[in-house]
Formats: sequence, C-alpha cells, structure tokens
Amino acid sequence: MNGPYVIGIDFGTLSGRIVVIDPADGREVSSVTVEYPHGVMDRYLPSGKALPPEFALQDPEDYLKVLQAIPEVLKEAGVSRESIAGLGVDFTACTMLPVDEEGRPLCQLAEFKDEPHAYVKLWKHHGAKSEADEINRLAKERNESWLQIYGGAVSPEWMLPKILETLRNVPEVYEKTCRFTEAGDWISRLLTGKETHSAVFAGYKGLWNAETGYPGNEFMKELDVRLDGIVGTKLFPRISGMDEIAGTINEEGSALTGLPAGIKVSLPVIDAHTAMPAVNIVSSGSMALILGTSACHLIHSGQCFPVPGISGYVKDGVVPGLYTYEAGQAASGDIFDWFVHNGIPASYEEYAKARGIGIHKLLREKAMRLSPGESGLIALDWLNGNRSVLSNAKLSGMILGMTLQTKPEEIYRAWIEATAFGTRMILEQFEENGLAVRSITAAGGIAKKDEMLMQIYADVTGKEISVSGAAEATALGSAIYAATAAGIYPSLTDAAAAMSAKIVRTYRPDEVNRKIYDRLYGEYKTLHDYFGRGGNDVMMRLREMKPQVL
Amino acid sequence: MNGPYVIGIDFGTLSGRIVVIDPADGREVSSVTVEYPHGVMDRYLPSGKALPPEFALQDPEDYLKVLQAIPEVLKEAGVSRESIAGLGVDFTACTMLPVDEEGRPLCQLAEFKDEPHAYVKLWKHHGAKSEADEINRLAKERNESWLQIYGGAVSPEWMLPKILETLRNVPEVYEKTCRFTEAGDWISRLLTGKETHSAVFAGYKGLWNAETGYPGNEFMKELDVRLDGIVGTKLFPRISGMDEIAGTINEEGSALTGLPAGIKVSLPVIDAHTAMPAVNIVSSGSMALILGTSACHLIHSGQCFPVPGISGYVKDGVVPGLYTYEAGQAASGDIFDWFVHNGIPASYEEYAKARGIGIHKLLREKAMRLSPGESGLIALDWLNGNRSVLSNAKLSGMILGMTLQTKPEEIYRAWIEATAFGTRMILEQFEENGLAVRSITAAGGIAKKDEMLMQIYADVTGKEISVSGAAEATALGSAIYAATAAGIYPSLTDAAAAMSAKIVRTYRPDEVNRKIYDRLYGEYKTLHDYFGRGGNDVMMRLREMKPQVL
Repeated sequence: MNGPYVIGIDFGTLSGRIVVIDPADGREVSSVTVEYPHGVMDRYLPSGKALPPEFALQDPEDYLKVLQAIPEVLKEAGVSRESIAGLGVDFTACTMLPVDEEGRPLCQLAEFKDEPHAYVKLWKHHGAKSEADEINRLAKERNESWLQIYGGAVSPEWMLPKILETLRNVPEVYEKTCRFTEAGDWISRLLTGKETHSAVFAGYKGLWNAETGYPGNEFMKELDVRLDGIVGTKLFPRISGMDEIAGTINEEGSALTGLPAGIKVSLPVIDAHTAMPAVNIVSSGSMALILGTSACHLIHSGQCFPVPGISGYVKDGVVPGLYTYEAGQAASGDIFDWFVHNGIPASYEEYAKARGIGIHKLLREKAMRLSPGESGLIALDWLNGNRSVLSNAKLSGMILGMTLQTKPEEIYRAWIEATAFGTRMILEQFEENGLAVRSITAAGGIAKKDEMLMQIYADVTGKEISVSGAAEATALGSAIYAATAAGIYPSLTDAAAAMSAKIVRTYRPDEVNRKIYDRLYGEYKTLHDYFGRGGNDVMMRLREMKPQVL
Repeated sequence: MNGPYVIGIDFGTLSGRIVVIDPADGREVSSVTVEYPHGVMDRYLPSGKALPPEFALQDPEDYLKVLQAIPEVLKEAGVSRESIAGLGVDFTACTMLPVDEEGRPLCQLAEFKDEPHAYVKLWKHHGAKSEADEINRLAKERNESWLQIYGGAVSPEWMLPKILETLRNVPEVYEKTCRFTEAGDWISRLLTGKETHSAVFAGYKGLWNAETGYPGNEFMKELDVRLDGIVGTKLFPRISGMDEIAGTINEEGSALTGLPAGIKVSLPVIDAHTAMPAVNIVSSGSMALILGTSACHLIHSGQCFPVPGISGYVKDGVVPGLYTYEAGQAASGDIFDWFVHNGIPASYEEYAKARGIGIHKLLREKAMRLSPGESGLIALDWLNGNRSVLSNAKLSGMILGMTLQTKPEEIYRAWIEATAFGTRMILEQFEENGLAVRSITAAGGIAKKDEMLMQIYADVTGKEISVSGAAEATALGSAIYAATAAGIYPSLTDAAAAMSAKIVRTYRPDEVNRKIYDRLYGEYKTLHDYFGRGGNDVMMRLREMKPQVL
C-alpha cells in the first residue's frame, strides 16, 4: 500500500488509541490501544504515597508509551513510515502539568517525585473546588467580562483553579514551573520541538479568548499576589487557532515515534471536539452529541454571544472562522455504570448470566417494555454535578416516585430519561439564546449500541437524531485534522466531507411518547430550578456537611 | 399444670398465631402459627378468577383454620381445656367482609363464589382510592365535624370507602349484605354467638366516635342515595368499649375451638393496639412505637382533641376511660426489604454468603461505620404513601444527594434515617398539639434486632427509647385482655403490670449525632413540606400519569 496515510491519536482517560486512516475515504487501516500503565492515580502516587480525596492524577511517562506504539500499528497496517503524510492528536482537557525550561514534567525531577502537584492533573481532578469558588467570587465582584463566556462560572476542572491549587498548597512547585501546559500541547512540543498552545484548550479551559486574551494581571494579582505576571511567563501568551498547524516532526519526535522528521503535525484538539469533523459537523446549526461516560454538546456558529450556563465558546478552536460552543453533562454513561454496579440485585445478575447476556442488555430489554410515565419516576442527573446550564459541581443526584413496587429496570430507565431531559435543557438553552439547532448527529459508544436510549433522546428532545457510524470518532477526527495539516485537502471542510463517517441510523420522535415526555420534562424543569437555582440549596448544604470530602 | 391460663390469638396478614399464657407473670407456655392457606389473594380468587390491580382479599375460611388449631397448642402446652379462663383476639383492620343474617360470609354463597367484593377486603386492599377521594371531598364540602378526628382525611383502607366500592361495583352484593363487619368482630360472633362491634375498630376505621356516632344519614345519602339508612342496618349501631367484654364461648364456639363453653372472650382489638398493654403502656404520656413492615405510634391521653394529620383517636378503645391516639408510617421495614431485594448488587450478596451472614446484617455492619451526614444523602420515606401527618396515599419516595461514589450501604442507611425523621415528624405533631411524649417504648422484630436503627431513632428523636422484650407483643396483649375479661385481674392496668414484657434495652441519644441529625431533620422537613404540602405536587401528578395503576 502506497498511501498517503494519516495518523490520528486519541489520548483518553485510561488509554491512548492510534489509528491509521486512508484520507481518501476515512477508512481505518489499522489501530491499536495502549493502556496507560498507571491509569488514573486517585489513591496513590507510583511511589506508594497516598493522595488526598478528590485527586485524579496521571504520569506523563504513560503518554510516551502510546507514541512508542506507532511502529507497531504501522507494521500491522502494512504501511511504511514514509507513506505517513500527517499526524493529529486529541487529548482530554483540562489535563495539565507543570514543566521546566526544557519542557520536562516537574514530577520527573527527583525533588518532586513524591509531590502530587508536580504530576499531571487529569481533567476530572477535583482538588480545586474551593479555588474555583474563590475565582468565581472575585470575578463576579470585579464584574470580569470574560466570565459571561463561561456561562458565569469557572469549573474546578479548569486550568486556573488547578494552578491556584498548586500555588496555595506547594508554592515550591509553582515557583519551579516554567510553564503550565495542557498535556495535548505538551505532546505537540515533544513531537515538533516547538511550543504552541492550541486555542481550543486555552479558550475552553484556560479563560482565554481571542478578543481580550487571558484575565488581566490586576485580576490575577488580586486573586493571589504571587500570580503577578503569570501571563507571558508561566502561561504562554501566544495562542494558535485552527488556521495554523503545530509544526513538523523533528529529530527527537522522530526518535520517539519512529516516524520520519518533517511530517506535518496538526494542532492538538480537545478529544470530544475532534468528533465534530469526524461526524461532518463543520458548519453552523448542526449539533454534535457525544455520548460516553459524560456527554458533550457542540455546535458551531458564525456569531459570538454568551449563552448563560454554557461552558464556553472559542473562535477558530475547531473550524477556522467559526465559533464553537460547548456544553456538557458531567455524567451520562457513568450514571448507568454506577447504577449497574451498585443498584442491580443478584437475581438479575444471575438471570442475565443464565441467559448468557450482559446485565446492561438485560436491563435494556426490561426497560424497553416500559412506556414513558409508567414507572412514575423522575430523576435529576447530577451525580457528578451539573456542568451546563447550572455550572455547579456541588449539585447531586435525585430520584423520586419510588413505591414498594418499583423495579430496578424502572430506576435504570429513569436515569436514562434524566440524562435525556438534561440534554433537552441544554438544547433549549442554545435555542433560547439564538443558536438554532437544526439537526443533531450523535456519536460515541452509547449512541451506536443503545437503541432504547437513542429513541428516548429523540422522543424527549422532539428532534431527529442521526447516529454516526464512526467507530472511533475522536481518533478519526484527529486524522482529519492531520490530512488538512498535510495539505491533502485544501480545507477542513473538504477533508471532513471526504473522510467523515457515514450516518448509520436516524431516530425520529414518536409523537405519542413525545407528548408524555413533554409533561415529564415540565416536571424535570421545575425540580431542576428548585434544586439548582436557589429554591432549596439542600444539595450544596449536604455536600458541605460531608466530613473531609467535598 | 393447673392454671388458670389464658389464650391470645393474633390474626396477622399472612397467618394467625395462638399463644397460651400464664397470667401470673405473662410467661408464654406454648404457641403455634397457622399460615392462611390462601394467604393474601391479590391476583386470583380460589376459583382462579383474576383480580383487578390493587386488590388484596382473604378467604374467611382461612381464619377458622387458626381457631381449629387451639387443641394442638393446648396439647403441646400440656394444659387442659378446662384450665383456660379467658380468650382474647386481635386482628388486622380495617379487614372487613359482608355477611348475611346468620353471619355467613357472602363469598360462601354459591352465587357470589366468583365475586371479589363478596370476600374479605384486607386492610391493605387499595381498590377504593377514588371512593376515599369522593368521601373526603364531600366531607370537606359539608364541613363534617368527624373529619378532623382523622386528621382531615379518610384513608382508602377504611370501612366506608370499601363499602362504597362494593356498592358502586356490585350493587347485588351490597343489597344482599345484612352486615358489613370487621373480621375481628366476626370472630367474636363465631365464638360467642353474640354480635358485638368493638370501639377500636369502629373508632379508628369506621368513622364512628363516642360523641356523635357514625356520619349522619344526610351525609350518607348525599354520598350515594343507596346508602340511605345504612347505619342501624348494614352497619351495627351499638359499639362496645373496653369496659365491656365480647361474651362467653357458646356451643358452636366450643365445637370450633375445642374449648368448653362459658369461657370469657374479651372484645377484639386492632393488632398493633394490643401491643400497648403488652409493653405496659396503659396510662397517658408514654408512646408505643411498633416497628414492623410498617410503623405504628400509639399514645393514651385523658383528653380529647384533634391532632391534624393523625389517623384518629378513640375513647375506651384500648384502655377504659382513656383516649388512644394512633399515628403510623405506611412503610418502615417494607422499605428496607424493598431495597434489599431490589437495590443490593450481586457482589454484596456474594460477600455476605461467603461470610455466612445475612445481607441485612452485612449492610448494617457497613452502614454502622458511617457517621450521620457522611453519605450526603437524604430521603423521604413515602414508598407506601404517607399515613401521618400528611394523610396522602399518593405520595411516593424520594432520595437525593447521590454521586457516582455513593455506595449501597449509604442508601440503606438513608432509608433508615428517613423513617426515623418520619417518626420525629409524628412525635412533634403529637407534642405541638398538646400530647406530651414523656417516654417511648418500642416493640416489634426490628426494635429487638436492629441496634443501629434503634440508636439512629434515639439520635434523631432526641429521646430515650426502651425496647420491650416481648416476643409476640400483639398476641401477649390479647392474652392480657383475656385475663382481664376473665376477672383474673380487677383491671387492665393491673393485668398489664403483672403480665407485660420486661424492658431489655434502652437507647439514649448521642449528643454529637443528635446535633447533626437536627440539621438533617431540618432539611427533611423542608422537603416534606415542599413535596407533601403543595409546594410541588409532582408525586401526585406522576401517580396519575401511571397507566391503570394508581
């Protein structure tokens, strides 16, 4: 096989996945998944040192293991290294680390081997909640204009709270840091030897925007005097949009990956965002719904305006010239998994086993037979807080309507319906603020395999939902960026048109169910506002009563 | 053994239990439990005819099987029939049936063999919800004075809704009925040949009170013109208080039980109420807390006043000269059982099995290690509706505060705490209305075996709770009434002093926990009022959306 071919690498939460793609049609030639040896470190450092609650760290060394697997996947593909024209990377975000002048992670210095704050703080690291509160308070007090871009609230998962947490807890690490960097940008630097910082990371997670840059130094100083001058020093001031590329593979990058020097590397992208070109959403008005452990709702627009409670919008972050708006649900598949592991009785497990099917499948079979409203249950899907439109990590889950006759499959379905209602809240928030959602394309494992869930989403939202056939939408998306960076296509739009995955199924709302769900959604909204907008702050008070853990 | 001895018979939901008691000290000489052959008929009649949803019927023939086991228990006790001085009976209520002139159940007539409404409607028969709604509407409209005795609401489980349900659905059964009778009173009639109707049944479940009798005929006629004249015909007008006895065993009663004619039979009592003398609560100010599948809260007072939301009060119903107030939680142990059967994962079951302990015990072990507030959960215990103080069968359960880290034992403990908060609501309702609760004595299976639950109840209520050692409080209570009827003691007070069970343990509130629970109880009250007093009637609306089932 002669090529050219492109490589997409998707750095996920637990593993990295490399795909080799034929840019002619987006066909996957081969792929490999490399588990991170240390996975998510939430209890111990590699040395055995115990971590505080709410920590979620990674070892940057693990990411190199993924890059080092490139020769293996090429061999399996029967593709020569010379036939690779471009490489693209996507990464979870904000997944950040402190590095020194040479770009070396501080955790690799002997003095910080046992220091948690010198490691990679994974996107779901929740150690910076009080710092986020502090940032939100001060930004509101000072009426900072950038706050509205983020729907009025900074998440503890983002860059500045994580930096402030480091500064407050281990000032030595802060002092020693030459640059705080997203792990995605750090990978680019490893490959190309050139430091770039991608607008998609800085815009969504770093409080940066194209018009006014980072928060001003007065704000930084008032937050903590030691942050004086951080922008331009520990935060790289130049941010690159999708009209640029990251660079080309240099000698060190070549040694690491086995790829020839000179190969074009596109700018790294947030993992969920690369799914947009992969499902051919590269113009305004179409929404991508990425359903995984959490859910992500992405839509482009030529216009720029704040949407209350929506995490952010970034110009040139995904498509040159367009603003991309991102909203999300902090837990989706995670809720179903939690329920299956914690709430399904042994009798169900045994029955599933006897029939030789998985427990999710058994539950879906049983739940599918229920009509909307039949269970009498309604739930709030905030088991990991609410990311949009309430932007409050301290909210929690709720379910009501249980009787002594309530069955596990009814509760299972209620959790699914709750996530569908949460998605409709986000859709309506987009639309009420001028972002018409003309069509929805769903991707992610759940979208392809859970027909019941997809039909419920169509019935609840009242919209047609197409499911993309993309097996690995994020990695494919990175490959589409790679093909564009390599100049195989003149634009991302052209690359996406040729390489994106085809639609495999379309779900249309059932009119009878839709009417029932309209009523249930009305109930959901009332409860959403009561518990989420100050009617009763019991969830936050209960969180604060929890000893130690927030 | 010479005696005298007394017999107590407890007719429960699934079986009848006979105890032979030594009246000198209340010691149980022997006992036997007879399962009802037809149990609770909630799906089919004995003929195989299918029943509508929400039905819960019994076959009166099953009760005779219990009476026929008396010779067996005497034999086992080594006690002669001649040494029996008295017999007492307690029964579930309102458990009612229609009988003809001879006292024969209508379901025993060939023409009604296949007619559900001709059978015994068990206390938990829920077929008369719309009839109860209708009665409540009309009583409010007419400002009926008796309504306040029942906290402002008639339960669908009571006598008049069940009669109205029969009249509306099968007027032929209503026509043919000579008397609607509580099953407890029907047993008295079988034993003595004399028709009596016990104040405790008529007062709590029949809308009768000592001052004004049954609801007036104008009310009855407006409810349904065919009810014209029901009091005095199909409802026996003379009601007997605890200063009377039911009578003495006659020839037919002797044939049925093997006991000599002439033995004194006390008036039948509602099953939970007989526990009061069994735990020596026969004067004002002490509350009996009976913890089983549901919970019952009973307290005496010399005074008579309505307590909003409390099911009722009856003079002479339990102790001559005193008013007894009854409140209740419609589900207590039933909630824990529901959760254990529907919400505990296989891994827990396997672990319990491997350790050779029950699943309840494993959960208690794990839940016991939690501090109050640690789980961040709070729940409303209305999985079977709310009997007091909201008197609304259409309410349902709720739990909030779940995160992806929430464990089954945390949810288990939250349900227990919810029932404790529900008990505190009732206590406060008593106290705010002038019924000081000076002490609490708990009885029932849960009270004796679940130390964690009892400590939580003490911590939540802030009161000392003594646990009675009574193994079968209800049957022992019936024996105490029997001893009084037989004249072995001059009064119920004397009989209870000698025969009641001893206190085996006292739980005292832990001051640290009590303060945390005070805060959580505050949250419970807010949610209780929001969902229960019109802030958000979502639970009722969800019930109404359920197809078929109410």
